[in-house]
Amino acid sequence: MQGKFITFEGADGSGKTTQIEKIKKYLEEKGHKCLLTREPGGSKLGNKIREILLHYDGEVDYLSELLLYMADRAQHVKTIILPALKEGMIVLCDRYIDSSVAYQGYARGLDVEQIMELNKIATFGIEPDLTIVFDVETQTAIKRLGETKDRLEQEGIEFHQKLRYGYLELAKKFPQRISVVNSNLTIEEVFSEVKKILKDF
Amino acid sequence: MQGKFITFEGADGSGKTTQIEKIKKYLEEKGHKCLLTREPGGSKLGNKIREILLHYDGEVDYLSELLLYMADRAQHVKTIILPALKEGMIVLCDRYIDSSVAYQGYARGLDVEQIMELNKIATFGIEPDLTIVFDVETQTAIKRLGETKDRLEQEGIEFHQKLRYGYLELAKKFPQRISVVNSNLTIEEVFSEVKKILKDF
Repeated sequence: MQGKFITFEGADGSGKTTQIEKIKKYLEEKGHKCLLTREPGGSKLGNKIREILLHYDGEVDYLSELLLYMADRAQHVKTIILPALKEGMIVLCDRYIDSSVAYQGYARGLDVEQIMELNKIATFGIEPDLTIVFDVETQTAIKRLGETKDRLEQEGIEFHQKLRYGYLELAKKFPQRISVVNSNLTIEEVFSEVKKILKDF
Repeated sequence: MQGKFITFEGADGSGKTTQIEKIKKYLEEKGHKCLLTREPGGSKLGNKIREILLHYDGEVDYLSELLLYMADRAQHVKTIILPALKEGMIVLCDRYIDSSVAYQGYARGLDVEQIMELNKIATFGIEPDLTIVFDVETQTAIKRLGETKDRLEQEGIEFHQKLRYGYLELAKKFPQRISVVNSNLTIEEVFSEVKKILKDF
């Protein structure tokens, strides 16, 4: 693998998407070729799965939901991420394996070890070289979301607290790969933190 | 679990669907309450997944395809099969765990052990009490299909041969659970075979 694979994690309302766009611009100005992608929905098939995951209004069993994310992931890695890495690009991915562990594991209560096992299968073993977690206080995240809440965002405060705890636990477990950024600050303050991490990396 | 769980397997064109309808009628005439269901697509969410699996016209990675079947299965077991078994019904299911092993494993070449592991996760450990495999010669199956071929049915002769071999291997591996019926005969001949198996069971 010649390229680099960087993933971005955090609750909705953590400012993740704004930061990723700034990061892409920053890296491209330094002459790097970047691919910006996301989960769920980074591939054409994935967009069909994303549609179900975010907007299906019937009952969705948690395990079934998890397996839909895994199906999306397998397609994404095989058809989008791996080819870009082989071309030597920097792949910037909005959510990846840690989202499944934090959301479906820590927040929903599914077995964390089993999710990690499924992640290994669905990714063909492809781990990120670097993961940045945008850590934001629950109340701040909820305020930032305003009126644009989808199915996952409507889960409530306790859900968000468990999610945040999950991300911080993951960062403790994989300190070599995962860096946590304090995302309660202003956009520019957060971005300057991120630039430090990218330079070290 | 008070009910009984019977699954039906075989290539498209094996006469499986015709037989299942006759079996349901037969069991109901004997006073049993039956639920007839199928995979993929036995649940409301499952029908959305089925739509992708059978009719999506873009590239689908084999592993992603497998995981979509697993997502469908988890939802199906949790919301349809388990509740019916708890009510004491006989659940008749057109395709289940063995389809994934035969199609995605033996025919497509994915790791058979890994598929069995995923099956255990996606089914919450719920195995059929009885499985009937309708075994049909490849040429017969293809002829019976005629013009109504969907994505899977267009795979060609070699695919069907591997699939048939896969089902027969499964029957060897799990002789207590799986019975093979010679489905090259007439509808009535096959059905009389099936009735013998049901009586023994």
